[in-house]
Amino acid sequence: MIRTLNRQVRLARRPRGAPVPDDFRIVDGPVPVPNDGELLLRNLYLSLDPYMRGRMNDSHGSYASPYALPFALDAPPGGGTVARVMRSRLDSFAEGDLVVTPDAGWQTFAISDGTGLRRLPNDMAQPSQALGVLGMTGFTAWWGLTAIGRPQAGETLVVSAAAGAVGSVVGQIGRLLGCRVIGIAGGTDKCRQVVEELGFDACLDYRVPDLAGRLREAAPDGIDIYFENVGGAVREAVWPLLNNDARVPVCGLVSGYNGVTEEAGGIHALLMSLIVKRIRLQGFMNADHLDSFPDFERQMRGWLDAGQLRALETIVDGLDQAATAFVGLFEGHNTGKLVVRLSE
Amino acid sequence: MIRTLNRQVRLARRPRGAPVPDDFRIVDGPVPVPNDGELLLRNLYLSLDPYMRGRMNDSHGSYASPYALPFALDAPPGGGTVARVMRSRLDSFAEGDLVVTPDAGWQTFAISDGTGLRRLPNDMAQPSQALGVLGMTGFTAWWGLTAIGRPQAGETLVVSAAAGAVGSVVGQIGRLLGCRVIGIAGGTDKCRQVVEELGFDACLDYRVPDLAGRLREAAPDGIDIYFENVGGAVREAVWPLLNNDARVPVCGLVSGYNGVTEEAGGIHALLMSLIVKRIRLQGFMNADHLDSFPDFERQMRGWLDAGQLRALETIVDGLDQAATAFVGLFEGHNTGKLVVRLSE
Repeated sequence: MIRTLNRQVRLARRPRGAPVPDDFRIVDGPVPVPNDGELLLRNLYLSLDPYMRGRMNDSHGSYASPYALPFALDAPPGGGTVARVMRSRLDSFAEGDLVVTPDAGWQTFAISDGTGLRRLPNDMAQPSQALGVLGMTGFTAWWGLTAIGRPQAGETLVVSAAAGAVGSVVGQIGRLLGCRVIGIAGGTDKCRQVVEELGFDACLDYRVPDLAGRLREAAPDGIDIYFENVGGAVREAVWPLLNNDARVPVCGLVSGYNGVTEEAGGIHALLMSLIVKRIRLQGFMNADHLDSFPDFERQMRGWLDAGQLRALETIVDGLDQAATAFVGLFEGHNTGKLVVRLSE
Repeated sequence: MIRTLNRQVRLARRPRGAPVPDDFRIVDGPVPVPNDGELLLRNLYLSLDPYMRGRMNDSHGSYASPYALPFALDAPPGGGTVARVMRSRLDSFAEGDLVVTPDAGWQTFAISDGTGLRRLPNDMAQPSQALGVLGMTGFTAWWGLTAIGRPQAGETLVVSAAAGAVGSVVGQIGRLLGCRVIGIAGGTDKCRQVVEELGFDACLDYRVPDLAGRLREAAPDGIDIYFENVGGAVREAVWPLLNNDARVPVCGLVSGYNGVTEEAGGIHALLMSLIVKRIRLQGFMNADHLDSFPDFERQMRGWLDAGQLRALETIVDGLDQAATAFVGLFEGHNTGKLVVRLSE
């Protein structure tokens, strides 16, 4: 029993700032007919995610990346769905199969050649979970927290957008792995839900005055992991509380997606580039790694003795010259290592 | 044959902006006498490093860290030296031993209880190298590049302050490990030295107009590793050329150490905090890690089935509501995963 119309929500124009309903248009058309090697899918559930906002722009400015080409105008913006196979002209799927699609969204029917489809149990009780906690949303939370955040029992984890799709999962995983979990969310109702229903240890409303001070009280041992979904003022409140060796998985920066952010433009662009280019930015102090000094010495001496490495030095004679030489460091006077010889 | 005077260069006042010679004062005093359990050291070589500038301030502002407490006024500012043991009242060292000290600098003699001393071969041909290529400087270059940069043969490595103590070593190691290495340094003489003496593939003078354009020509395959010593305009030129999965070991930000930087204050403070707190900031895209999806599913289904994890969802009914629901994402209307139900 296939309806005779395929309803689509199309991107009518590119949003300026926050999206509004008039940026979209509903269009009814004929239900498409699958060719050989194709499936006709009926969408049951559509996933809506903040990242879609970025793809509604016509470019991504300085952080453009092929992963996220702009959505076409006057077409459905894509996005994941749970769908039922209505007709199959493809051997690997049968009518009645339940699948997750990566990009068939914003319409009631879609044609697929099977690319990127993930099969679900046909009798799955709550198929919408395949878009959420058991889908790409949950996977984002799980991978970012475990692979980048590397939580250890007893550590303090702060999650922004804690009541959101990703944040609500991040915090629960953190709790299951033994972290003390503090959420940051918008409003007292969300905060109550995050604590009472999801079991976070605490949740702060980011709209309160002195968020930084409240957060300091809630995280007396500092913050070991900050799962970044938001950016902006929330990041600013978290930052001074980060402990040494903190990990910050940068998942999203929703505060800036509409191009309206309280964050300095440079920082938003910098962090956004980390996401779209999967960049790892890591500060370090040599003193933390001295257990590797013998390995270093062995390799460097080998190269030095073999003449494969040169020791570039600027040697200044006499302690009396130390101050002048130091001043020169910032004027580009030396090349290589600057050393003062006091005596042979 | 110990001289009767210990000459010290003391920090006379805290520099404002770039240091000047008058920030220091030379003071002669008696050679100190070791007590039981102490050594008298005579410094042969003093290491001078840009990081010392930060410790000459009376605080580090928002990126304060106990690792780098301010130097005391009217005292030698510390810093590493190569020294000879002149008198030993400590069993583990003998007169004549050659050692590296972590903090005995800016004076001709020093007393040590042995803490942090590293022994050198007494007949070491070029003891100053124990402060440079074979010392903490070289170790910084080696650890930051290999452990964070993780260079692969054929990758493009860009090194700022390429003629400096750390940069000159980073680039050579990169070359030995098979990278294409591009240095950035101040002036044509330094650039020539970096290429001709150290074997970098190329070196750009950061003072040229259109550094970004020159760098694009020099790195036609983009940049896989940027070893950050400088910050500021150099970082800005490098950034758009970073490839996906780029690594950026943040070693130093000398462009901002004097408190005068062309970089937006926020970014300098952000990157500085990465160094002093050894923070890892890493963006990611879930689509890169789908080989872990089965592990994710197994763990999450387990928690979900055991009732240890809750799937927070906001379900909106009807495709016609999709646009309004999407708009609401940015107004905080939903909690958990936002899903549109099109059909059961």
